[in-house]
Amino acid sequence: MTDYKAPLRDMNFTYFELFDYANHWKQFPQYDETDQDLVEAIFTESAKFAENVLVPLYRSGDEEGCTWSEDGVKTPEGYKEAYQQFVEAGWPSMTHSVDHGGQGLPESVGLALAEITSAANQSFGMYPGLSHGAMRTIEAHGTEDQIHKYLGKLISGEWTGTMCLTESHCGTDLGLLRTKAEPNADGSYNLTGQKIFISAGEHDLSDNIIHIVLARLPDAPAGVKGISLFIVPKFNVDDNGEVADRNAVNCGSIEHKMGINANATCVMNFDGAKGFLIGAPNKGLRCMFTFINTSRMGVATQGQAHAELGFQKSLAYAKDRLQMRALGKRKNPEAAADAIIVHPDVRRMLLTQKSFAEGGRMLTAYLSSLVDIQAVHSDEKARKEADDRLALMTPIAKAFMSETGFESANLGLQCFGGHGYIREWGMEQNVRDARIAMLYEGTSGVQAIDLLGRKIMGTKGKVLKPYIKEIEAFCAKHKDNDNKMIQQMLKQIDHSAGKLSKMTTSIGLKALKNPEEVGAASFDYLMFAGYLTYAYLWAMAAVKAQEVLDAGETKEPKFYEAKLKTAEFYWTRIMPRSKAHSLALETGSKNLMQLDEDMFAF
Amino acid sequence: MTDYKAPLRDMNFTYFELFDYANHWKQFPQYDETDQDLVEAIFTESAKFAENVLVPLYRSGDEEGCTWSEDGVKTPEGYKEAYQQFVEAGWPSMTHSVDHGGQGLPESVGLALAEITSAANQSFGMYPGLSHGAMRTIEAHGTEDQIHKYLGKLISGEWTGTMCLTESHCGTDLGLLRTKAEPNADGSYNLTGQKIFISAGEHDLSDNIIHIVLARLPDAPAGVKGISLFIVPKFNVDDNGEVADRNAVNCGSIEHKMGINANATCVMNFDGAKGFLIGAPNKGLRCMFTFINTSRMGVATQGQAHAELGFQKSLAYAKDRLQMRALGKRKNPEAAADAIIVHPDVRRMLLTQKSFAEGGRMLTAYLSSLVDIQAVHSDEKARKEADDRLALMTPIAKAFMSETGFESANLGLQCFGGHGYIREWGMEQNVRDARIAMLYEGTSGVQAIDLLGRKIMGTKGKVLKPYIKEIEAFCAKHKDNDNKMIQQMLKQIDHSAGKLSKMTTSIGLKALKNPEEVGAASFDYLMFAGYLTYAYLWAMAAVKAQEVLDAGETKEPKFYEAKLKTAEFYWTRIMPRSKAHSLALETGSKNLMQLDEDMFAF
Repeated sequence: MTDYKAPLRDMNFTYFELFDYANHWKQFPQYDETDQDLVEAIFTESAKFAENVLVPLYRSGDEEGCTWSEDGVKTPEGYKEAYQQFVEAGWPSMTHSVDHGGQGLPESVGLALAEITSAANQSFGMYPGLSHGAMRTIEAHGTEDQIHKYLGKLISGEWTGTMCLTESHCGTDLGLLRTKAEPNADGSYNLTGQKIFISAGEHDLSDNIIHIVLARLPDAPAGVKGISLFIVPKFNVDDNGEVADRNAVNCGSIEHKMGINANATCVMNFDGAKGFLIGAPNKGLRCMFTFINTSRMGVATQGQAHAELGFQKSLAYAKDRLQMRALGKRKNPEAAADAIIVHPDVRRMLLTQKSFAEGGRMLTAYLSSLVDIQAVHSDEKARKEADDRLALMTPIAKAFMSETGFESANLGLQCFGGHGYIREWGMEQNVRDARIAMLYEGTSGVQAIDLLGRKIMGTKGKVLKPYIKEIEAFCAKHKDNDNKMIQQMLKQIDHSAGKLSKMTTSIGLKALKNPEEVGAASFDYLMFAGYLTYAYLWAMAAVKAQEVLDAGETKEPKFYEAKLKTAEFYWTRIMPRSKAHSLALETGSKNLMQLDEDMFAF
Repeated sequence: MTDYKAPLRDMNFTYFELFDYANHWKQFPQYDETDQDLVEAIFTESAKFAENVLVPLYRSGDEEGCTWSEDGVKTPEGYKEAYQQFVEAGWPSMTHSVDHGGQGLPESVGLALAEITSAANQSFGMYPGLSHGAMRTIEAHGTEDQIHKYLGKLISGEWTGTMCLTESHCGTDLGLLRTKAEPNADGSYNLTGQKIFISAGEHDLSDNIIHIVLARLPDAPAGVKGISLFIVPKFNVDDNGEVADRNAVNCGSIEHKMGINANATCVMNFDGAKGFLIGAPNKGLRCMFTFINTSRMGVATQGQAHAELGFQKSLAYAKDRLQMRALGKRKNPEAAADAIIVHPDVRRMLLTQKSFAEGGRMLTAYLSSLVDIQAVHSDEKARKEADDRLALMTPIAKAFMSETGFESANLGLQCFGGHGYIREWGMEQNVRDARIAMLYEGTSGVQAIDLLGRKIMGTKGKVLKPYIKEIEAFCAKHKDNDNKMIQQMLKQIDHSAGKLSKMTTSIGLKALKNPEEVGAASFDYLMFAGYLTYAYLWAMAAVKAQEVLDAGETKEPKFYEAKLKTAEFYWTRIMPRSKAHSLALETGSKNLMQLDEDMFAF
């Protein structure tokens, strides 16, 4: 069985050839030491760590899972030691402020690496992943004292963090949440309530766990306008920033799940636990969105990682497994049969995974540069534009990358035939692990309504227009490319971008009469936008590959030819799906809404 | 949590209103006692058994799984008792010959019930399911003595059967198989070799297990033309048909799988095990196809069962779970939020499942009548026509019903949000169990090449033409239906049927120059044919529902209105997917074949 290897060649292509990150980072004085050599070296180190430390724990962690006892949660054998190595190597601190012990690298580098960690071992990656969100929230919204008290040890990795939103009766609908925060005389609060689905909520990896918790103040208005955000440490922290007595927050049980078994998903009971307000009272949801957006991008990269993992393993298997003869000329006459990679339908499955894995990598790279700009660009207008584009693209990336990641994981399994169903091969684990990405941090349906309802209709299309213009400008710029395939591809992409624009207007008009039209169109709309986005990125890759080949200096012509051929596969074989989505959404809401509730089943 | 209930109202609609099974059975003298009252009563009894005995073991069987020891395989707690009850109620004997203790009911009744058993507890249903195939094989190809010796106790359910094809190096490619059968002086054979993935290969439910095994005679030609079929009992059977000494066939281990954990998937070692040839030497594969075709139809109904199970559970959850408000007018102002069934995107997921569950039920019913005709019709021409149509439709049903079953199971999980990922709800088990159906008895890709390569190209389209004509005739007959929706739907179906015909010709022409074109088109071709087939069936249902409503006598108008509205949903929202498949397949093989093997990854 072939183990996961970080796809360094393709990462370097994506970040340094296609998106020119070396120059991107030069825009920012605080990243003056971030250059290509450094980041390539970081990619390589991360690959080594993942391959040597995380991959060996991938299957064993799934089989063993986490175990709960009254004393806490034990992670699977080897996870504590792996986390220790992760901390010692400085990975948690990489993109955090040097003022608090971080290494001050751009967020984009962290997002690039998230792919490697998630593909090697998603369950492991979620522990530092959630910490990262907690750190960003405290950095952005915490008081100086809070930053001083909590951030250093989170950044060093000695402590980890979580995000406590969901309650049993409220997931998507946070307005319903009931956890109470009652003020104490000393300015702290006592939190009481139960949270569920808390990833990394309790474990044995770190000395303390800092929970970021949504709760209601006693006088809070009902609904989402009455939610505040709190820091609740597992162990209280004294004035020197050291662990003190145990706080009244406990893990009541852990969930038995379909996958990500090595990550503890906890029911957390707050029994008058001491907490500290972050940000203004009743404005907690706004603060929490820092965390949520970070997490949504993180989940998007998980989807892409599942695509990459499934692709690598099924590609190796397809080259190795002998079964049946090619329908054309015999490929391997000495052996009893041909390797299954000769069969067109196996290639369809492999290329679908490849185009999604590399497509998702390009989308991460495309968005990560905006994350840097939004975070640290000196020009407010540039920050605002990046913020708008991220607002538009985050739900697309989260849903589309997780949906196509799950499809790829399934195709990977499918290439193995019956063997894919057997746990030892790890392919079904990839499917089970991949399945969560379409659910947590907002389901695909929630992303779709966020995209079409809040982001697009909510801005009257303002955040969409510049994206469509960008795509159209790219198509116009390269329309006379000498490569006919690129010409045809761009023509279709230009057409699809126009189609997206027209559909948006049309849904907007219909929605004036009937607000259900937005919900009815939303999922197909998002998927259409996703297929278009990957097509745009594959066109970029094709143009770049053609340029390199035309220059005639590359020693790796096959790498660039493969880009052209995969782009061709994507737009001829995958892009037609967007047509199914546009046709479906154009039928409007009637076919969904006309059944009374009692008519669904008899 | 809502448990599965057999959808009796819809089964009765499908079998007795839409397909008029009461009159269908009257064609056959041997089924003169099979009437609607009897079969409705059987449906009801099967529903009771499934709901009372099988459903309670669904989750516990998955959690506990089977356990191997040197003494054999133990099924989960309660399975042995459930199987005992199953036998006592006479279920195994239902469709088998009265001459050997069966009840002599038509195969179509058994296929209808397969849905109920698979939805209630697929792992359980596979034990008698495999026995059924073994019985049919012995009935069709066994000698009188073999029939006498083995069939009675298989029919009574005292013994069970299996199907031993796969070896570790050959699944699809049976020509590679190595298990040897050496003749003994007494006419028996000694079988030596290892088979893997043997469902129900060893367990504690029955007193004996009759393996149907593919192996090679010493002088056999290489490849598929040198395969013979054998009966190999776990315990040898004496001349009185009673269990005697232990045969040298043993379960070496059981697989750890993604799902169907309560069914033992065994590695079976044949160490000079005594076996008996069924059928002619070297003609084993042809005999085995009786088994394989029976099994493929069985797997198709499993796919449909997973769609039904997911639909029922997510529908109940969607009516119960309160989360967010409808975008239109407030539906449930007293409660804190609306039930999620108000949201258009949740309805999209529910209706997709519904249209697949009921569509699959119709396809089973459509094909089951052909199974009866093929098996027992007095007219040879009728038998041949039914056989041809089944040859065409079996791969479509197997792949399309398992693919859409898996999609439905996933949509069912998705409706639950994060809760769907938690094992206690059973939704993720449905996904895991459903996943096998796309793999065993030939993957979807294998079905696709069987359909387009062997069945269609292999007959120069002869088996396809009558099906297309049938669809076109139906469309022509009802084109002036007073219901405008039906008119539009039929117009599109007629167009799609013509499209299928044209694509077939076009692929055939291209394949003359390049045989890879068939493999390149096959999967999209099968999916196109599947979407068209469900559309045709939904159109039939719509026409029937409209007739009933027009007659003005029904006391259940909502039932029939729901059929019309679900048909509308299907053809407006789901049918557009066929366009994506036709566009993709029309791009030909180049985009799949042009990458060298070493260009898939770098």
